[in-house]
Parts: sequence; structure tokens; C-alpha cells
Amino acid sequence: MASSVAETKELENHSDCCVKLCNPNVATMKEDVLYHFNLSTATHDFPAMFGDVKFVCVGGSPSRMKAFIRYVASELSLDRPGMDYPNICAGTDRYAMFKVGPVLSVSHGMGIPSIAIMLHELIKLLYHARCSGITVIRIGTSGGIGLEPGSVVITRQAVDACFKPEFEQVVLGKRVIRSTDLDEQLVQELTQCSADLSEFTTVVGNTMCTLDFYEGQGRLDGALCFYTEKDKQEYLKAAYAAGIRNIEMESSVFAAMCSACGLRAAVVCVTLLDRLKGDQISSPHEVLAEYQQRPQRLVGHFIKKCLSAPDVP
Amino acid sequence: MASSVAETKELENHSDCCVKLCNPNVATMKEDVLYHFNLSTATHDFPAMFGDVKFVCVGGSPSRMKAFIRYVASELSLDRPGMDYPNICAGTDRYAMFKVGPVLSVSHGMGIPSIAIMLHELIKLLYHARCSGITVIRIGTSGGIGLEPGSVVITRQAVDACFKPEFEQVVLGKRVIRSTDLDEQLVQELTQCSADLSEFTTVVGNTMCTLDFYEGQGRLDGALCFYTEKDKQEYLKAAYAAGIRNIEMESSVFAAMCSACGLRAAVVCVTLLDRLKGDQISSPHEVLAEYQQRPQRLVGHFIKKCLSAPDVP
Repeated sequence: MASSVAETKELENHSDCCVKLCNPNVATMKEDVLYHFNLSTATHDFPAMFGDVKFVCVGGSPSRMKAFIRYVASELSLDRPGMDYPNICAGTDRYAMFKVGPVLSVSHGMGIPSIAIMLHELIKLLYHARCSGITVIRIGTSGGIGLEPGSVVITRQAVDACFKPEFEQVVLGKRVIRSTDLDEQLVQELTQCSADLSEFTTVVGNTMCTLDFYEGQGRLDGALCFYTEKDKQEYLKAAYAAGIRNIEMESSVFAAMCSACGLRAAVVCVTLLDRLKGDQISSPHEVLAEYQQRPQRLVGHFIKKCLSAPDVP
Repeated sequence: MASSVAETKELENHSDCCVKLCNPNVATMKEDVLYHFNLSTATHDFPAMFGDVKFVCVGGSPSRMKAFIRYVASELSLDRPGMDYPNICAGTDRYAMFKVGPVLSVSHGMGIPSIAIMLHELIKLLYHARCSGITVIRIGTSGGIGLEPGSVVITRQAVDACFKPEFEQVVLGKRVIRSTDLDEQLVQELTQCSADLSEFTTVVGNTMCTLDFYEGQGRLDGALCFYTEKDKQEYLKAAYAAGIRNIEMESSVFAAMCSACGLRAAVVCVTLLDRLKGDQISSPHEVLAEYQQRPQRLVGHFIKKCLSAPDVP
């Protein structure tokens, strides 16, 4: 990767950067059970299992994250004939986790609460494993606004359903607001990777993160709907005017938690449909399957490029 | 089941009660793709597949919901040697669905957004299948407050993290509040079933539904924690004083959506630990596995009792 002296310095700094928890209690715990991963510091050697991890890719579906680890293994020439990638979280069906070389691939289910549980345990896992220089990328699916289906969106800013770059949470009964900053440099690097590949349309835009797929995203086809097509169009057009190019259900808490814990993070989602033109995801299975590979190809290329760059350790 | 004339009338009324959508658009759609179930009205005969369903049980984990259908099949003497229960949602790993006789068992993942997507599509499925007299029960796991681990809580009222019996949602950028009423009669019937069984402690109490498992439930062992043990204890004790006996992550939207669509609904969760005494779920696997069977046994007994009652069609 061609990079200026300043960029190189930044990358080097990043590579030294340890995962930090925002919780002093964890360091004093004798054992830490990561319940939803079915892993514990008392029964698993985290530094040996995960100490070499540099890239963590997360996505909703377990089977997609398994497909991703196979793909990355092949891209990085780390695959061997007949090689399998066992689920590290075998024994639970809450999440699935796979690893090859410096890449960890983890599923997170759907929605903010589901990815938040996973991120709490993932960040503690990386901390216990004494990892440094970690980049975390969500590779997902989304609804697009004003984009051809199949377009990929790299998130500039994750915003809430009121278009604000905030993540609101209730802690001990009180509302807490956190910022949803993502790494600008990483957005640029990923954009360059998409240009290198030149296989599909990629845009940088804001991503709206909602708590519901139907009413929460203005769909007209849920079990409940108390508004009109006109109301929906107005909402989506206002979102477009606010720089929003896609809608999904995990980016805000993902950005907030990674940022708080010093993890370089990005969100790369393919759009399965244009929400200005409809609500139902009714494209043929093969078409949707190919769309879902696009963020994997972009991020696979990014990881390969990072690892082959002479100036990155 | 012994029931008064008034109760019988109520049950008969319930049995005639069709699933109603709160959305006039669905009736006019040529095809309805239930994307996250991988089912469509154009490719599947919903009345033939699901028309006889009377009980829908939902829970977070796919493997637990498969175990439940096996258990219910055996309880209702509907099992045959070597019988398998194929996943009706094969082709997607978002949710898993199983059926035996009048019982449907569906997984919903973790958290409000994940169960909400499933409920939108489940309620439309029941509507398209022209089902009537449906009872929906969530059988789940939870953290208890002031209860012996393994105790089962039947939810009187689902409340939010501020202890209010409300579900707040953002629709088209505006906050909407819905009530989280559950069926009182059903709470009584389930309580009676637990007394019939007499196998484990069961209480009726309020259930707090949060958007996060760590900070959102006052845990001290997440990746982020900016409060003290004392703050946590005060919060949980205030929750106890407000009648809350357990904490989970799905009940409020479950109650709100079922109530809006005329579905008789209940929440039955086992408590895996007493949150006043700790945060980590570190009981041995076999102990937790047995706990998780308790809501299944209670609800399995309830279904069997309902089906054998002479006054219920």
C-alpha cells in the first residue's frame, strides 16, 4: 500500500494500540465467563487462541461468517485442501466464531441488543488475549436509499432514526448518549480498495441504524402500519437529504462501542433493494447471494492489501 | 380443565378469534415474501401448512426451540420412532421454525429488534394461514432478582428499564409508546399448571425488558461500566420494589405486538442467576440445561391440558 510518512506513522501507532476496556472491574476478576460465546478465561487460553488476531469481521448470519472465513483463507493463501474451520463457539447457538491466521469472523444476529452482547464479549476476549492494532469491520446487508440494488455503502457516519449521529442507551434507568464516530482514514482506505477491485458500485454515505425492520424503517408491509406511502416517501427522502444512503440495524452501537474501546472500526454493507421503490426483498436467491458476497470481497481485498504492505508490521 | 360457564364462554370466544393485522396493505398484496423466514405466499400454501396451529411457542435459541418441539410431540403422543422435525425455515439461518400438530415452535434470537422482525412475519404468517384462537407463549431465560436460580417467572406485566409498562418505538422519526398488556387469564392458567406439576418454584411478577445485557441490566462485568456495585444494587433493589422479579430482552415488544394483533400472549422465563448476588452466568452446563427445560415443561403441560379439556374445541 502506498502511504505517506504521516500515514505510516499513524498505522504504526495503530498497530501498537492495545484493546482497552472502559471497565476497571474486569482486570480484577479471577475468571471471566463469556457466556454467549461459551468461552471462559478459566478453561481457554485466550492469548494462545486469539493473540495474533489483527482483523475482526462481524456480520449477522452465522453461515455468511463461515463463508467469509473460507473466502479470506483462500485470498490469503492460508487454506489447505480439505481444511475445515470449526466454530470456536461450538456448544452455544447464540453466536458463531471462526478464525484463520490474523482474521476472526464472528456472527452477531440481528439488531442493536444482539450485536451489543457480542461486542461486549468480543472486546473482553481481545483484551484478555492481549491483542493490539485491531481493526473491526462489520460486513452486512441493508436497504438502500436512491441506490441501485447491489451497491455497497461504506459508512461515513452512523445515525439514528432521527438522523442524529448518536447512540442512545438506558443505563441504570437513565438515558445516556454516545457518539457514533467511525475511523475516517479507514473509510478512505476501503474506498480505495473498492476502486482497486472495480467490480461493483461503492459509495460513502451515512447509515441509518433503526431498532425495527418494519415500522422503524417506514415499511408498508409489516403486521402493523399506521402511516401511508406518502408519509414513508417523505421520511426516506428526508433521510436521503441528510446524507443517508442505507438503513440497517447494528451500526450505531457498533460505532459507539468500538470507538469507546479504541478499536479502529468500519461498516461496509451491501444494499439489497432501493427502499424508494419498494419494501419487499424479492430478488432471486442467486442475485441476493451474489450481492452478499460484495462486502466480503471488498474487505477480503483490504485485509490482503494491509498484510502485504511492506510498511505495516 | 375445570372452568366456570363464564370462563368457557371466554375460551370459546378466544377460539373463534382470528389473527388481525394492524395494516390494511397486506390484504392487497399479490405476494408476501416473509424474507427472514424464507417463506412466501407465492411458493408456500400457508393455510395447508399452518392452518391448524393453535399454540405458538417462541424462544431465543434455535436448538432450544427444536428440543421443545420434540418434547411437546412426546407429551402430546404425536411422536413416532425415528421421527424428525425439519426446520421449516431451512434456507435461512435468521430463524428456525418447527411444527408438530397444533404447535409451532419458532426461534427469535436475542433482543427487541430480533424478536420484532420475527413477530411481524409470524403474525402475517398466521393471518395468511387464516388461523384462529391462537395462544403465543415466549419461553425464555432471564436474570432473576431476589429469587433462587432456577425459579420460573410468569410475567404479570412487561416493563421497560425505567420500570414503566410501556414499549417505546421510533416510527418515521417520531417516538410512539405502546402498552405492554398481557392476558391475565392466561397468567392464572399457567400458574395453575405450575401448581399441577409441582416440580420447581414459579412466581408471578413483573419482567423488565432491556435493550442491553451488560450496562442496560446494571452488570459490572461488561466491556464498558461507568458505575459502582452500590449504584447497581440500588437500581436492582428499586426494580424489586417495583414488583420486578426478572430481567430479559424481548418481553415488552412481544406483549405490545401480540396485544395489538389480538393474540393471547404470555411470557414464561426461567432465571439463571440471582442478579442481587452476581452478574456472571457460571453454573455448570448441566444445571443450566435443566433450568432451561423448566419453561418447556410448564408450557408443554399447559398445551396438553388445553387440548384434553372437553370444553375447548
